[in-house]
Formats: sequence, C-alpha cells, structure tokens
Amino acid sequence: MNILIAPDSFKESLSAGAVADALEAGFKKILPDARYVKIPMADGGEGTVQSLIDATQGRLKTVAVTAPLGNTVEAGFGISGDGKTAVIEMAAASGLHLVAPEQRNPLLTTSYGTGELILAALDEGVEKIILGIGGSATNDGGAGMLQALGVSFTNKFGKEIPFGGGNLHQITQADFSRLDSRLQHTQIEVACDVDNPLCGEKGAAAVFGPQKGATPQIVAELDSALEHFADIIADCCETDIRNHAGAGAAGGMGGGLLTLPNVRLQSGIQIVMETVNLAAHIRKADLVITGEGRMDAQSIHGKTPVGVAQTAKQYGKPVIAVVGCLHEDYEVVYEHGIDAVFPIIRQTAPLEQVLANARENLISTAQNIARVMTLSR
Amino acid sequence: MNILIAPDSFKESLSAGAVADALEAGFKKILPDARYVKIPMADGGEGTVQSLIDATQGRLKTVAVTAPLGNTVEAGFGISGDGKTAVIEMAAASGLHLVAPEQRNPLLTTSYGTGELILAALDEGVEKIILGIGGSATNDGGAGMLQALGVSFTNKFGKEIPFGGGNLHQITQADFSRLDSRLQHTQIEVACDVDNPLCGEKGAAAVFGPQKGATPQIVAELDSALEHFADIIADCCETDIRNHAGAGAAGGMGGGLLTLPNVRLQSGIQIVMETVNLAAHIRKADLVITGEGRMDAQSIHGKTPVGVAQTAKQYGKPVIAVVGCLHEDYEVVYEHGIDAVFPIIRQTAPLEQVLANARENLISTAQNIARVMTLSR
Repeated sequence: MNILIAPDSFKESLSAGAVADALEAGFKKILPDARYVKIPMADGGEGTVQSLIDATQGRLKTVAVTAPLGNTVEAGFGISGDGKTAVIEMAAASGLHLVAPEQRNPLLTTSYGTGELILAALDEGVEKIILGIGGSATNDGGAGMLQALGVSFTNKFGKEIPFGGGNLHQITQADFSRLDSRLQHTQIEVACDVDNPLCGEKGAAAVFGPQKGATPQIVAELDSALEHFADIIADCCETDIRNHAGAGAAGGMGGGLLTLPNVRLQSGIQIVMETVNLAAHIRKADLVITGEGRMDAQSIHGKTPVGVAQTAKQYGKPVIAVVGCLHEDYEVVYEHGIDAVFPIIRQTAPLEQVLANARENLISTAQNIARVMTLSR
Repeated sequence: MNILIAPDSFKESLSAGAVADALEAGFKKILPDARYVKIPMADGGEGTVQSLIDATQGRLKTVAVTAPLGNTVEAGFGISGDGKTAVIEMAAASGLHLVAPEQRNPLLTTSYGTGELILAALDEGVEKIILGIGGSATNDGGAGMLQALGVSFTNKFGKEIPFGGGNLHQITQADFSRLDSRLQHTQIEVACDVDNPLCGEKGAAAVFGPQKGATPQIVAELDSALEHFADIIADCCETDIRNHAGAGAAGGMGGGLLTLPNVRLQSGIQIVMETVNLAAHIRKADLVITGEGRMDAQSIHGKTPVGVAQTAKQYGKPVIAVVGCLHEDYEVVYEHGIDAVFPIIRQTAPLEQVLANARENLISTAQNIARVMTLSR
C-alpha cells in the first residue's frame, strides 16, 4: 500500500514537515509495511518557505534587508535542493508583524525589502522565484520592491521618491532602464489567491488598508495614490495594472510585479503542487493523507487540503484530512475531494497546551484512522 | 451490515440513549442501509437508571424518601419495560450531592433512604433489583438501609439506635425477624466495582470516609464502629462481613447488603450487560460502536466501553469507541478489545461549550468514521 502524506503546517504549532512525520509515525504503528511518501505542503502563505525547503531538501538563506519602516531586518528565504528555485515570503521582509501596532501606517511602509530578497535570490543563480505575498504591511503598489530591483521613480524635482504608499502621488517619471537584467530570464511565480483590482472600492487600499492601520481618510489618500501610480505605469510600460485581477493583492504588490518580465500570478496551492510535482506522487498513491491547522468552509478557497484533494480526485484517489480544529461549517469540503476529516484535539485544555500536544495528538489520530482502515479490510 | 451501538452516557452532557441516537445519526448519513441496534449502556454508576430505562423501554418512578441527614428527598428509580426489574442508584436517596459540603459528616448520615427505595421497588412486584451503590454520603454499614427493610438495631436500653455511622457502636442487639419477607424471593444484584473489606486500612472508613467529610479522628471512630457492627452481624447472622471483598463499598453498604438473602455483589458493567442481554446483540452485529465521556487508562477497570469490547471480542467482533475526551494513557484499552477510538472535540472551547456541542460533535465523528470504513471497502 502506498500512502502519500501531504499536509500543510499547523500554524503556531508544527511545520508541515513535522505534521507529515507525526502522521507517518501514527500510520506506521498499524501499517508498518505500507510505503510512505511525505511531501510537506503549503498554499503560498505562512510556512511556504519552510515547507518547500523540507519538500525539496533545500536550505534557508538569511539576508539583511529593509524593513517596512526603513530599519533593517534579517529575512530568510528558501533555496530548493536542486538550487534552481528560490522561495520568498514577502512577509519576511515587509510583513505586518514587523511593525508595532501603534506604528502601522501604510502611507509610510515600503516593499523595498522584498525587492532586496528577490535580488538575493537572483544572486543565487536561480531560474525561478516563488513569491508568496501574504501578510504585508505595505500599500505602495510594489514601488519599493521595484526600486530595489533598479527601477527609478522620480518626482518633479528629479529626485527619487521616498518610501511609502503616501508618496506615490509625487511620481512624475518612471525609469525601468536599469531594471536588474537577470529578471529577463527568471520566472517569477506569484502566489496570489485574491482577484482584487489595484484601485477602487475592491482595490488594495479599500479592502486591505484598514487591517494595515489605514484610517478611512488614509484609505482614500492611498487609493488616489495608486490611481496615479497606475497612470504612470500605463504611460511608461504600456501595462494596465489598474484593473488586472490580483493587482490589488498585498497593497498593490500584485500590480507592481506585473510590470516585471516573466511574472505569473496564480493560486499559491497550484504553484506549490507544481513545484513538488504532487500529481506524480498522487498517481502512485493508494491513499492520500492531508491536513491543516484549521478546517472550515473557507478551506475550499485555495487552502492546501482541498487543493491536494481536488488533484487526488482527478486520479480517483481517496483523501483523508487530519486537522488541528474543525469548524461547524466544514462539511462543504466533502464536495471538494475530502473523503473524511478528523480533528486531533483529545481533551479540553488551554490553546497553548493543545498546540503543544499537536504532535502526540496527530500520532494518536493517525493511528486510530489506520486502525479503522485495517478493521474494515 | 448490522451495527450495534452500545455507549455509556457522557457525564454532564448526554444520556447514553442520546449518545446512541447521535452516533446512529452520523453513521446513517454514510451507511443508510445498515441495520442499527441501539442499547444505552451503563456501568452501575451514575446514569445506570436512565440507561436501563431507555434500553428496556421502562419508566422512572419517584418516591419521597429519607435523605442522608434525615430530611426528605424525592428520589427516582427505574422499572424495566417488562416490569420485572427495578434499577436503583443509591445516590438518588443517599448521595453525597444531597448534603451541603459544610454538613458532610458520615458519623451522622444514613442509608435509610436507599432501604426505602428498595421497599418501593418491592411494592412494584419486581423479581430483581439492580442496585448501584456509588456516590453515597454514608458510612453506616448499610444499617439505615436494613432498618428501613425491617431490621431492628437496638442499644442497651432496648431503643432503636439513631441514624449515622457514629451510632453503630451503641448496638447491643440486631433483630432480623421482621425483615421484609418479599426479599426472600427477590434477587438483588449489587453493582460493586471495589473489593475493599469493611474494616481496617483498606476499609470503608479509611478509604472512602475522607471524601465524605470524615477527619482522621472521625475515620478512626467510624472504623471502630464498623468493627463493632461486624461483630454484631457475625453473632446474629453468622455472616462474616468484615473481610468480604466489597463489604467496604459505599461506607459498608456492601457489607450490610450481604446480610440479606439473594444478594450478589458483582461488577456493574457485567450486571448491565446481562440485563440488556448484550451478548445476544453482539452475536448478531458486524460492528460494535461504544463510548464514554472520558477514556483513559482507568477505563479498563469496569468501565462500559471495555466491558462491551471484551464481550465483543469473545465473538470476534470489531469495536470502535467514540469518546468525549481521550487521555494520554489510554492506549492500554487496545489490549482490552477496543480496536480504535476517536475523541469528538473539534475545537478548543470552554468546557461548557464542548459539553453543549457533544451531540453535533458525535454526529460528525461518527460520520467520518463511517466515511473511512466506506473508503477502504
């Protein structure tokens, strides 16, 4: 029997690799002779770097980059085992968690550090960069990122504009001539699970600004700045980023990235599944085990277990999910390829203790699932 | 497919009947054509009356009896559907929960009310009485119970001794001549899962006295009173209750009951399994589902799921347990007939909410177990 174990991480508790190890340990107690393949998964969000490092036997590289408010932060990114792919989480350089709550103001925050991470990846000689853009503190249309990569945005005095979404309106000229030339032959896969446009009521500022610290007045200011930025880009690059689906992701980072060559925005789980060649593993499996920290009705929107399950169902394979917690409205996942799902909590306990017990609870749950499978054969 | 559903109650949450209904509802979602037999179970402890009423389509009868401190309490007991068996929980008349914590003193508390319940059962014309003796507030050697049934315990002045374990030392004479004659042809099955002797360091007072409010000094006084009681019984009945295994149960109630004709002390789960003819149902089943509120290493000592599982294994039937919570040390249950066990908690939440969600969580867990069974066929 071939069992493929392809879970996401359990947030605040275990990496996807550790989840996979625990699930394997539980199944092996009952099915010691099955063949196990473990593929730590991710959906482009938090944990994607670690999962792809673990899935490809890659490594983490850490560099000092510019944090959202201009200070310096040590940020890691992943290099795949074959050295051909870099994996970057924008949040490592430009994440909201890097800015103290009282300092959060997307008029001021820059995506420059993420551009520096891309440069560092290019320095490694990769052919492809996977870029997850969740959790950013920024609303600068990716202008900072582009500046790091060699693009110049100048104001009417010919001076480079300062960092922050609030300064985009100053731009009178954009110059892409000194864009890092290595980008011409580097594929950038942007993990982007929203289809918001850059501007307007479904745009970056209106939808994501408030959670980054923008007041209604700041939202209006940022939206108008992004409008101006879209005009500048349209003029210089003949690219309409204003209404492109996904351009509004990560404070307009999606839009900024669309000005680069060889960029594709697509669902994070699809990118990860392609990167680890999940379909090939599923083809060889008799049973697929997946999981995530929390399963609910939202899990059908681009989360790992349902992505894995939908691919598994293309090959008619059974899928069992093991999850940290399971919310009332979860049953819709049955319509998306999940055959059965088990939460791992064994006792009422404070959240910290439940998180601390995750490994043991995973092993126990996996063991009992295997026991039922063995019963009914 | 024949599925037998035979769980205990989930304490503070659902009766065994309600647990069985929820498990059936979950399985039926996936296996609508299976044949289901539901037998609400119990182990002689709390919930036994309700489970046996539900299992036999019986009824509850309520009577006013003497509470442990002499006041009156409305206490219920069960009559089986065929009218032949009464089910009594001693705690209903003589339970610790009936005495306010600050008033708990086994020198004073009496088992008289339990004797009145036995009388009320005899009035119903039953052939058999099942008596669960857990949770009592008393340490009177069952003297109060015997007084209610017509036995006389008098002091040197020829006066009936007052209630309470502290007055046993006054007894100079015991007279069983007016014992209710109906007891001669009524079988009493006492659900007793401890083998403590009446007296000494493993006796009723030393082991169970403290939890009933006895200080060390009171324990010594009670133990000495039970010694005297054993002497009196030995004289009048030629019965040695001092060292009989189980005589120390329920403050010596086990010992007092041994002075009656047709009394058998045995494990509660065995009594319940015989009463509901569980083995016959197991023989016809392809799968046995059981459960309890909390499963841990103690579950192998007379708790319902392991009792059910051990019987099931005599017929080679698979057993899956579904439980309210599952503690670290539970795995020993695998050696006692449980093939797999699933806790039902789906989210971290306050205990009250977890208890309130029990029915929904049971349905969900049962459904997912059935889904795994269906997968692997």
